[in-house]
Amino acid sequence: MALIVQKYGGTSVGNPERIKNVAKRVAKFQAQGHQVVVVVSAMSGETNKLVALCKEVQANPDPRELDVVLSTGEQVTIGLLAMALKDIGVKAKSYTGGQVKVLTDSVFTKARILSIGEENIRRDLDDGSVVIVAGFQGVDEHGNITTLGRGGSDTSGVALAAALKADECQIYTDVDGVYTTDPRIVADAKKLDKITFEEMLEMASLGSKVLQIRSVEFAGKYKVKLRVLSSFQDEGEGTLITVEEDTNMEQPIISGIAFNRDEAKLTMSGVPDKPGIAYQILGAVAEANIDVDMIIQNVGHDGTTDFSFTVNRGEYAKTQAILENIKKTLGAREVTGDNKICKVSAVGVGMRSHPGVASQMFKALADEGINIQMISTSEIKISVVIDEKYLELAVRVLHRAFGLDQ
Amino acid sequence: MALIVQKYGGTSVGNPERIKNVAKRVAKFQAQGHQVVVVVSAMSGETNKLVALCKEVQANPDPRELDVVLSTGEQVTIGLLAMALKDIGVKAKSYTGGQVKVLTDSVFTKARILSIGEENIRRDLDDGSVVIVAGFQGVDEHGNITTLGRGGSDTSGVALAAALKADECQIYTDVDGVYTTDPRIVADAKKLDKITFEEMLEMASLGSKVLQIRSVEFAGKYKVKLRVLSSFQDEGEGTLITVEEDTNMEQPIISGIAFNRDEAKLTMSGVPDKPGIAYQILGAVAEANIDVDMIIQNVGHDGTTDFSFTVNRGEYAKTQAILENIKKTLGAREVTGDNKICKVSAVGVGMRSHPGVASQMFKALADEGINIQMISTSEIKISVVIDEKYLELAVRVLHRAFGLDQ
Repeated sequence: MALIVQKYGGTSVGNPERIKNVAKRVAKFQAQGHQVVVVVSAMSGETNKLVALCKEVQANPDPRELDVVLSTGEQVTIGLLAMALKDIGVKAKSYTGGQVKVLTDSVFTKARILSIGEENIRRDLDDGSVVIVAGFQGVDEHGNITTLGRGGSDTSGVALAAALKADECQIYTDVDGVYTTDPRIVADAKKLDKITFEEMLEMASLGSKVLQIRSVEFAGKYKVKLRVLSSFQDEGEGTLITVEEDTNMEQPIISGIAFNRDEAKLTMSGVPDKPGIAYQILGAVAEANIDVDMIIQNVGHDGTTDFSFTVNRGEYAKTQAILENIKKTLGAREVTGDNKICKVSAVGVGMRSHPGVASQMFKALADEGINIQMISTSEIKISVVIDEKYLELAVRVLHRAFGLDQ
Repeated sequence: MALIVQKYGGTSVGNPERIKNVAKRVAKFQAQGHQVVVVVSAMSGETNKLVALCKEVQANPDPRELDVVLSTGEQVTIGLLAMALKDIGVKAKSYTGGQVKVLTDSVFTKARILSIGEENIRRDLDDGSVVIVAGFQGVDEHGNITTLGRGGSDTSGVALAAALKADECQIYTDVDGVYTTDPRIVADAKKLDKITFEEMLEMASLGSKVLQIRSVEFAGKYKVKLRVLSSFQDEGEGTLITVEEDTNMEQPIISGIAFNRDEAKLTMSGVPDKPGIAYQILGAVAEANIDVDMIIQNVGHDGTTDFSFTVNRGEYAKTQAILENIKKTLGAREVTGDNKICKVSAVGVGMRSHPGVASQMFKALADEGINIQMISTSEIKISVVIDEKYLELAVRVLHRAFGLDQ
């Protein structure tokens, strides 16, 4: 007998029929002798509908009250799933975040989980019930309702699994696992049976949006065995996300090719090369709440340097204006940019022990005449910025170059 | 400075525009120096939508889980109203039933309020905030979400007013007060400035569905000054519902003419006239969860008696079947019935001190050739059952006969 936490996203509980299917799946696991805790999202579309309603009332909704309204989406789902389970003869009980006592800080709309009360859940599980918990929500120490931000239900699931020391946390979604790259671009992309937390983090942040990145960090930190599965297929083991040390298999050098289309790059050229420059430029950008991704500063010459970075494409114009604004103060020469770029990355823990991965990647791209505009590397990832028109070509070339289609 | 509890029903908060109007009205009261606690219902139509959704999942929804889902309707409204108030610069804070701690028993879908926590509300009021509380809902001692049944938001409002010892509980609705009868039937029906709790109870139970009857009982019991007002008019004092002793005005004999269309009557004739008959008949009906309204047993002759009662028209066929079923056991002669009847009642505390009201009523009906089929009286009410085709005529005739159009 194992204790399993299952998390079902909005698409998986998108209508009464699908909720009944989830109930059947949950019942199957329980019938196998497992204790099951289920975490659910709001039915797909509901959260957006509620946000729109709030904005009709207040253009910039008050965060505390926004959380009061948004948390109802998951509350509806937990009740419905409990009904669906009871309807097929399975004991079940639903809990809101507040009822389980998912204690969070008081940062409304993006709260962080501090602790989770186990008492009710353990009692109900021992009583033979399936326990259903509303994802995405909690309460702060004053009893205010909080939400964890978009995709927060994944984090709820992992946090519950960690608190309950569950044997596995299963994240059901509309894909059947994590792939070597997007199958819409590379037809023979392969589903990965296993991937490490670190790789998953790089894959997720690079645009393979299977799991919310925070939940992966959380799972890694608390060593929660995490599995991504399809809620629309009955078979399949999905992809297991593990701590690296657990994997005895021969590591492939590269696990996957990730990419992100929505990028733009900006360069401030001829910046006097002295301490504090990076802070002066990025400080101004951060103040405007713009997230910066890759950052590259070239070696200076003539006492000046070029400073480049990438931002989300939607922030391009705003960032450009900020740079133009500080150009004079910095004594820089000019601001240039390009919002027709994309980022392609090769991710894999194997590259740690395999030198030459970078040059292999650059050669593959060069052979196709794809010009690399920026390069950034981490221990388990190499990212390049290229013209966005080469995105698909680059992904296919690299997928093949690293033998991921085998 | 007064402490006022205002309750707004589903129609009054039916869309963002109306919620903003409610916010303006609340702000106006606060600007006059009053402390305001607002109780709101779900936006009109929402509760029905949620019930339908639940029934898609489970034909007969589990009561505990139904309450989990239904309570989200009011939770959305409290958040939206708080946003609307903040948007016009008014401090406001929303509370679910659980957050205020509206403690109820554990009878899901029709829970009764046991106590209400004042602490949070007092603190926020003293802090200059408008406090918004979700109507219709509470929590039981185990922290389970409960609801009070249809129209329960009125009860929430009155219970809050009682707990806080508010100076007045204002129930905003889509009518501007309680009328001497339905203005759709009698064009010159008059709005009553005052009415006693007892009269209101008789009017409400007889089909003038302005206020939920439980809330009136509650208000009477705890001597809460209750006022019915329109949320769509800026002027007007509505109708004040008071304990009789407070009214110094000359009592009119009759305050209003109430009626109910949805009636059906059944008669079991030739029942052996011995003790226990009433119980045997009505016990079987009650077991089928059918509410009985008027009950009349005529004086027996030849050792038998006729036993008549009325039920909601929707229960007519079911009740008939029950009576046919027990006819033999009882040794009764026959079961007859009529589902084309209605009930018309004259209500007024003044009739206590004015004999002759009944005969005045019967004469007015006789003058129009309206045959009375059944009569039932209480201290402050006389009801007659007549053919439903005479409903409008009877109401108009009685309204005029008792001088209510003056």
